[in-house]
Amino acid sequence: MNEIKLRDLIKSIDLNAAGTQMYQLVSDLYPICRSITGDGVRETLNKIKTIISLEVKEVPSGTQVFDWEVPKEWNIEDAWVKNSKGDKIIDFKKSNLHVLNYSVPIRKKVNLNELKEHLYTIPAHADWIPYRTSYYQENWGFCISHNQFAELKDESYDVLIDSSLTDGSLTFGEFYRKGASSDEVLISTHICHPSLCNDNLSGIALSAILGGHLSKVSLKYSYRFLFIPGTIGSITWLSLNKKSASKIKHGLVVACVGDPGNFTYKKTRIGSAEIDKIVTYALKNSAKDFNVIDFFPYGYDEGQYGCPGFNLPLGCLMRTPHGEYPEYHTSADNLEFVKPENLSTSLALYLDVLNTLEENKKYMNQNPMCEPQLGRRGLYQHIGGHADSKKFQLALLWTLNLSDGGNSLLDISERSGLDFSLISEAADILIEKDLLTEHKTQN
Amino acid sequence: MNEIKLRDLIKSIDLNAAGTQMYQLVSDLYPICRSITGDGVRETLNKIKTIISLEVKEVPSGTQVFDWEVPKEWNIEDAWVKNSKGDKIIDFKKSNLHVLNYSVPIRKKVNLNELKEHLYTIPAHADWIPYRTSYYQENWGFCISHNQFAELKDESYDVLIDSSLTDGSLTFGEFYRKGASSDEVLISTHICHPSLCNDNLSGIALSAILGGHLSKVSLKYSYRFLFIPGTIGSITWLSLNKKSASKIKHGLVVACVGDPGNFTYKKTRIGSAEIDKIVTYALKNSAKDFNVIDFFPYGYDEGQYGCPGFNLPLGCLMRTPHGEYPEYHTSADNLEFVKPENLSTSLALYLDVLNTLEENKKYMNQNPMCEPQLGRRGLYQHIGGHADSKKFQLALLWTLNLSDGGNSLLDISERSGLDFSLISEAADILIEKDLLTEHKTQN
Amino acid sequence: MNEIKLRDLIKSIDLNAAGTQMYQLVSDLYPICRSITGDGVRETLNKIKTIISLEVKEVPSGTQVFDWEVPKEWNIEDAWVKNSKGDKIIDFKKSNLHVLNYSVPIRKKVNLNELKEHLYTIPAHADWIPYRTSYYQENWGFCISHNQFAELKDESYDVLIDSSLTDGSLTFGEFYRKGASSDEVLISTHICHPSLCNDNLSGIALSAILGGHLSKVSLKYSYRFLFIPGTIGSITWLSLNKKSASKIKHGLVVACVGDPGNFTYKKTRIGSAEIDKIVTYALKNSAKDFNVIDFFPYGYDEGQYGCPGFNLPLGCLMRTPHGEYPEYHTSADNLEFVKPENLSTSLALYLDVLNTLEENKKYMNQNPMCEPQLGRRGLYQHIGGHADSKKFQLALLWTLNLSDGGNSLLDISERSGLDFSLISEAADILIEKDLLTEHKTQN
Repeated sequence: MNEIKLRDLIKSIDLNAAGTQMYQLVSDLYPICRSITGDGVRETLNKIKTIISLEVKEVPSGTQVFDWEVPKEWNIEDAWVKNSKGDKIIDFKKSNLHVLNYSVPIRKKVNLNELKEHLYTIPAHADWIPYRTSYYQENWGFCISHNQFAELKDESYDVLIDSSLTDGSLTFGEFYRKGASSDEVLISTHICHPSLCNDNLSGIALSAILGGHLSKVSLKYSYRFLFIPGTIGSITWLSLNKKSASKIKHGLVVACVGDPGNFTYKKTRIGSAEIDKIVTYALKNSAKDFNVIDFFPYGYDEGQYGCPGFNLPLGCLMRTPHGEYPEYHTSADNLEFVKPENLSTSLALYLDVLNTLEENKKYMNQNPMCEPQLGRRGLYQHIGGHADSKKFQLALLWTLNLSDGGNSLLDISERSGLDFSLISEAADILIEKDLLTEHKTQN
Repeated sequence: MNEIKLRDLIKSIDLNAAGTQMYQLVSDLYPICRSITGDGVRETLNKIKTIISLEVKEVPSGTQVFDWEVPKEWNIEDAWVKNSKGDKIIDFKKSNLHVLNYSVPIRKKVNLNELKEHLYTIPAHADWIPYRTSYYQENWGFCISHNQFAELKDESYDVLIDSSLTDGSLTFGEFYRKGASSDEVLISTHICHPSLCNDNLSGIALSAILGGHLSKVSLKYSYRFLFIPGTIGSITWLSLNKKSASKIKHGLVVACVGDPGNFTYKKTRIGSAEIDKIVTYALKNSAKDFNVIDFFPYGYDEGQYGCPGFNLPLGCLMRTPHGEYPEYHTSADNLEFVKPENLSTSLALYLDVLNTLEENKKYMNQNPMCEPQLGRRGLYQHIGGHADSKKFQLALLWTLNLSDGGNSLLDISERSGLDFSLISEAADILIEKDLLTEHKTQN
Repeated sequence: MNEIKLRDLIKSIDLNAAGTQMYQLVSDLYPICRSITGDGVRETLNKIKTIISLEVKEVPSGTQVFDWEVPKEWNIEDAWVKNSKGDKIIDFKKSNLHVLNYSVPIRKKVNLNELKEHLYTIPAHADWIPYRTSYYQENWGFCISHNQFAELKDESYDVLIDSSLTDGSLTFGEFYRKGASSDEVLISTHICHPSLCNDNLSGIALSAILGGHLSKVSLKYSYRFLFIPGTIGSITWLSLNKKSASKIKHGLVVACVGDPGNFTYKKTRIGSAEIDKIVTYALKNSAKDFNVIDFFPYGYDEGQYGCPGFNLPLGCLMRTPHGEYPEYHTSADNLEFVKPENLSTSLALYLDVLNTLEENKKYMNQNPMCEPQLGRRGLYQHIGGHADSKKFQLALLWTLNLSDGGNSLLDISERSGLDFSLISEAADILIEKDLLTEHKTQN
């Protein structure tokens, strides 16, 4: 059994290389046309399998999942619009955003007016192609730049969408990494968007690389990573795992982690869960501007995990939130918008958060009556050997004083104003000297 | 059974007309000389009976009511002071404020010095007559303008007060409107002041008209309106109704609601009662300046309702508080000082508060596992048909997400930042679609 | 039995005289060379015995006290360093700070380099002698001014320290004043510092005089005063009194109360104990700038009292905290630095705090149903006779309204915004009129 701890691994990670690796994965996945079902999802999951030992699962169309039903599987071969001269003026092969996602198959001659009823544009960003879907209402359509739309002539058009909507399955990926405890941390990311880099190839890449790193260390918690289509994917997973969902004690939804914006953390439905405190602490320590916002029951899958029936403590840790950057859900959310250095900073933050989660235990002082004599126990040597010996001595005293079973190391860090890492280091020495033992509580 | 709800009625109320009606009632009651007992109270209650089916109750003088005793009944026929020429220089018939309320009968010749010992004025407002009482200490006196006082000559005066203090009774009015629940809302207003419009003919008029409106609708709570003399009236009622007082779950003391000032809400002794939250919410929504102040154990009857032995959650919803406007307890608190439009705005606020109280239920989401599929249930049509469809969709999601039995609709409104009325509308649609059921809790 | 109450005594104390008396005690104790053990401590306690009936206790060296052991007893006769000419250039008789406290005996010729390894100075304050100790590591040394250090010549030195470290005992003083309740207030002060006035002859003098005053009055609580060496003294006392420590319900550590700085109160480990509220209230009422700071587990003995195993509610009430004034632990903490007027202001604050603690009871309103009739009970006479009759009437109403067993008089003072002394006075009258009885709660 690998006995390296996450905090040791973190020190050895080459973040630049990790940034390059994540960006490469984003680039590799970019051309694939994904949706909530279909071969694009399978191809995506297969690429992720080269990084972590993902289990790919298929749930048949028509399966009842709570109030919903797994939809028909959508696949697409080609799509275009030709003008009266026979030129392809809109071409799915050039950008999979051109097709309204989940469009039904069609082959039809239409005039300009009828065509316009099936065209989507963004007037405010006239050269970008929007991303649109119609999962639960049968429709067909094309997304184009508003500039192109403005120049369309009143002529006859030939429309082809060579798609299929058939009984098949919903596909998702699951990666489980067993830790010392059966208590789980859930990392969930959505995989249903086609050629859009920040939302959410960035989240997919970060989750995959993060999972890879966790594979190398021994962990306190067990970790479950879900690569699922948005909404229907989390509903499906929860429906099929009602019982084991109760093992999930902490979690994060990963999305929009490659853009240049500051971090935004959206808290869990509970609002004061341990993960909320830990992410807030990590952000404060990052010495950069950030936002912590309250939960709201829409956005990504945190609204499904945080429903009254489950109320799982999952927050969502992003850079710029969905809808708050102009490139969101457009062709401008591309390989230029996402940068390796943004991905690597995001990864570093996720690692820091998970490390704090791993280390954030409660202890009982084994010498609770007055201070123990530090000198007699050789602790002053440790203190003297420390870079900031004064602070380290205080860290020892604070950790002893507050380790009464009621305070976690993060609580002690916050009350003392000393860094979590210093408190954690103090706890390690005190454990070694038999002055602390872990205080395990029932959940 | 009338099945119109309060919120429907509110839409149909002509507030201008209501303002006029309340002002008319103030005008009709203005000339009557009231006190804590006596025929003035009976005449007042009889006028109110033309609006609501008030029950008039009499409690005999001498009845022990907790630490107090119902006092002798006071009535007055006439009172004046004549100068040595025989001119009536002070005349009760011109203003009933001229007599110290509860003056004992007297007929006496006095010189200026002796007369002055029984005269009350307001030097700071030299042309106003003050309002003074001496309920629990036998005394006689006159209240006059300071200007008149300054001009009194050193001569002999003939004094008459044709009053009586006899065994009789304390009179009060009670109006009860049964609702679906035996839990009660208490609306209490004091009726003991003579010709003073804001304090408290305004409160009497508003309570009467409010009671009239509640008579027309079907209600969740039962409502009890008390028209009582201040202090001794609430003590008497509580003493006679010790047991049933426990049914009172919410309440308001109505006073000073006709002046032009901003609203002031004085919170219940509890300070965080549901009525406190609801009035505060209503005031915030009114988009006007207002004050919310903490409870203190003096003022109107809220100090009796909020005593340690009862601790009933009654706040006091006023415009300018007692003592904080110069006209308070003077002849300047007259028919000019109170305006129909102030009365109608106050009524509108009271109606808004009671409506929120009626609607502020807790619900259980019947589909608590993940979001229900809104489209399948035809909810997108409702959303699409709504004036602000985006907000209404969020209202649906918030209401579903937080309806776990722990949050009232007002809680959901406050957490979501969406208007109570929108959340309430969302709840109605969700009930219709069998997605919510009321969550009834024991009190 | 003396039935004078503390509040009555306080009015009669001559604070100027008390300041002079405390300063005299500081002056008398200043020359004595104290340490954590030894005859200097005994001599100090004997002087205190002239003021209060102190019990002096001896705990043998080697006694196991929790994680610690009572150390050998240290005594010293003389110490000096002579230069090659035979001149005493450092002389213990001139200042006992010159010797590293707990130095082992030595008689040795040393060259300049070896001598320097045993010299301590303060470069930033070149003419002050530092105070240094080496209790738990055998060593010898001298403390001198940095100016003198700079001028030492490269010659041979003759060093003498005529000290002894032998099996003896740790000495401390205990003064117990019985009150009506067995619940205790602990006043703890450290006595281990040699010629240093603020830290902590000021604390010793204040504690002694305070104890003397408490001897003269009848008290609600029992009071225990400890005059102990820092750290090892409190650990020893707690170790020998594990069981009776549970009687301690409130307490203060007294230190640094003679300097000219503003008051600083360091809260108990609990942070919201009654003593925390009372000291904060007293400081607010003092109308001077002050600091209230959170607990931290180092400083004086509050960290031992406030360990996880005892968690006793002791705060520390100082003027300028240890380490925050340059004179701290130097020869400049002398008889000039401490002033009688600072000592007397500190005493006044301590008396105010203890008085509030004594008076801060909870009561039950014996007429909890509505207001009692104040007039009938002759209370309006009391009101009328009061300097601020309006405020006193409100104090009566507030005290009646909130005396439901849940609020202490300080709680009522804070909620009403009225002075504690006014509320306390109101409570006294209400007790006299049988309207209140004390509400005793189990601890």
